[in-house]
Amino acid sequence: MSAATPRYRAFPALRPGDPVTVVAPASPFDRASFEAGLEVIGRRYRAHYDPGLLTRHRYLAGSDARRLDELRRGLADTGSRALFCARGGYGMMRLLAGLEDTTLAAKPVVGFSDIVALHQLLQRRGLVSIHGPVLTQLGRLDASAATRLFELLESTAPAAALTGTETYVEGTAEGPLLGGNLAVLTRLLGTPYLAPLEGAVLLLEDVGERPYRLDRMWTHLALAGVFRQVRGIVLGEFIGCEEKSADFSSAEVLRELAADTGLPCAAGFPLGHGERNEAVPLGTRVRLDAGSRRLTFLESAAR
Amino acid sequence: MSAATPRYRAFPALRPGDPVTVVAPASPFDRASFEAGLEVIGRRYRAHYDPGLLTRHRYLAGSDARRLDELRRGLADTGSRALFCARGGYGMMRLLAGLEDTTLAAKPVVGFSDIVALHQLLQRRGLVSIHGPVLTQLGRLDASAATRLFELLESTAPAAALTGTETYVEGTAEGPLLGGNLAVLTRLLGTPYLAPLEGAVLLLEDVGERPYRLDRMWTHLALAGVFRQVRGIVLGEFIGCEEKSADFSSAEVLRELAADTGLPCAAGFPLGHGERNEAVPLGTRVRLDAGSRRLTFLESAAR
Repeated sequence: MSAATPRYRAFPALRPGDPVTVVAPASPFDRASFEAGLEVIGRRYRAHYDPGLLTRHRYLAGSDARRLDELRRGLADTGSRALFCARGGYGMMRLLAGLEDTTLAAKPVVGFSDIVALHQLLQRRGLVSIHGPVLTQLGRLDASAATRLFELLESTAPAAALTGTETYVEGTAEGPLLGGNLAVLTRLLGTPYLAPLEGAVLLLEDVGERPYRLDRMWTHLALAGVFRQVRGIVLGEFIGCEEKSADFSSAEVLRELAADTGLPCAAGFPLGHGERNEAVPLGTRVRLDAGSRRLTFLESAAR
Repeated sequence: MSAATPRYRAFPALRPGDPVTVVAPASPFDRASFEAGLEVIGRRYRAHYDPGLLTRHRYLAGSDARRLDELRRGLADTGSRALFCARGGYGMMRLLAGLEDTTLAAKPVVGFSDIVALHQLLQRRGLVSIHGPVLTQLGRLDASAATRLFELLESTAPAAALTGTETYVEGTAEGPLLGGNLAVLTRLLGTPYLAPLEGAVLLLEDVGERPYRLDRMWTHLALAGVFRQVRGIVLGEFIGCEEKSADFSSAEVLRELAADTGLPCAAGFPLGHGERNEAVPLGTRVRLDAGSRRLTFLESAAR
């Protein structure tokens, strides 16, 4: 890792019984998924939330003012040890400008998909955060998803390695793991809200994007110079990204796009919008061995 | 208009019978639409094309190499007086890096949607170009679409004013008309390939984007600072952008987003992916009177 690559600060390890906060900065959700997820979290920690998070305004979990206020309080509150996001969807980026002066207590934020816009704030401030299940997912994922998540939050040892299913470009890369949802990341290109990607191992996943749209988003990253900055690419799952009655797959398209970068790249890691969403720590150093499709975690997320 | 706002050079006026070129830098299309459009153009000009443009590679009208070679030759050829794009779709942005050193003969490029990525190259070089129907659209649009297009290409008088259907934010603005498809424009944010928007009257239209996606793209423009640069907003049609069984419309979402900018904004101008696609000259000075929903053209596209 070059001297220029920033280091990210681990968060204080959680302990069972710790108070944690649930927030909903993006899209609304149904109460049943919320309560199912709350029960999973509640078995391990004491979860608090503002009942206002169950409101709905169009495709948002309440107004920008409500979500921003809830999020600012959640991020600053030193009495809570972690912030769990209820759902992704859309809406987090609408709050980014309102978070520039916000205080961040030393605690992890947990979420993925639209929540990747929030992770950028944490990484811009030099902090590790957790790319992992949103609360409303926890009730339907295998119990091992929560087990891995809790371990990441509580252990001062690096997370267990993950294995993908395909090698797209052979090679190895080492650097902080950054990124997440392709659509959300690319929607921050050209703004001040994307964390610097220099030296990173870039994580990408997405859902419900047709192949030409994956191509367009990937090409956006390319034209913005991102593939000259990062060292390797880890692809999670791309769910519901096939074109009806096409004679090509989204995997073929992604494999070609990856080859064009020349960067080590392996695909099919068990995270994203599918049946599994293994938690991974953003900002910690990882080693990608694309040939053996193996992602090794070199640092703990918690301290 | 401030001294800092660039001026764009008009192209030499076409005359009936002039040689023109058809290119396909983006997605493939069916032969029937192509021939129908060719017939419309052929009644006015002598249209040439490379039969290779009828090839198909996934969602592209042939390989990048084919499309790039065709486009470079078409842009440089001084024997042809205009370049008509066969279709939009997706693929133009894949060619942008290969066009940086390309020679541009003095001639208009005609197209919209994905072709807006090509218009950026023209406007970056200080040239006027035509946001108007792609060739494969011409056979199904009302004949008046071609009439207006030919007039723009041939007349040294400013185009006839256009009228929208809704005032979103009252006020007037004057500046060069720039922009086009919202998705395509926002996919160039943070890259060197977007033409500067400072002082512009910004044109936006789109097709097949759910309201939250319109919000996301618009918010991308906002976070990238575009609404601090432009002076007014002209909205064309937003076709197929409604959410199934939603209690809100895409128009409501756009109206709120426009209000947040505080910029003069009128909507429902007859251009985009709908039944009408009136040609407008990008780069020429226009005056938007949002209160009367009127867009006046102050300069001719041709000289």
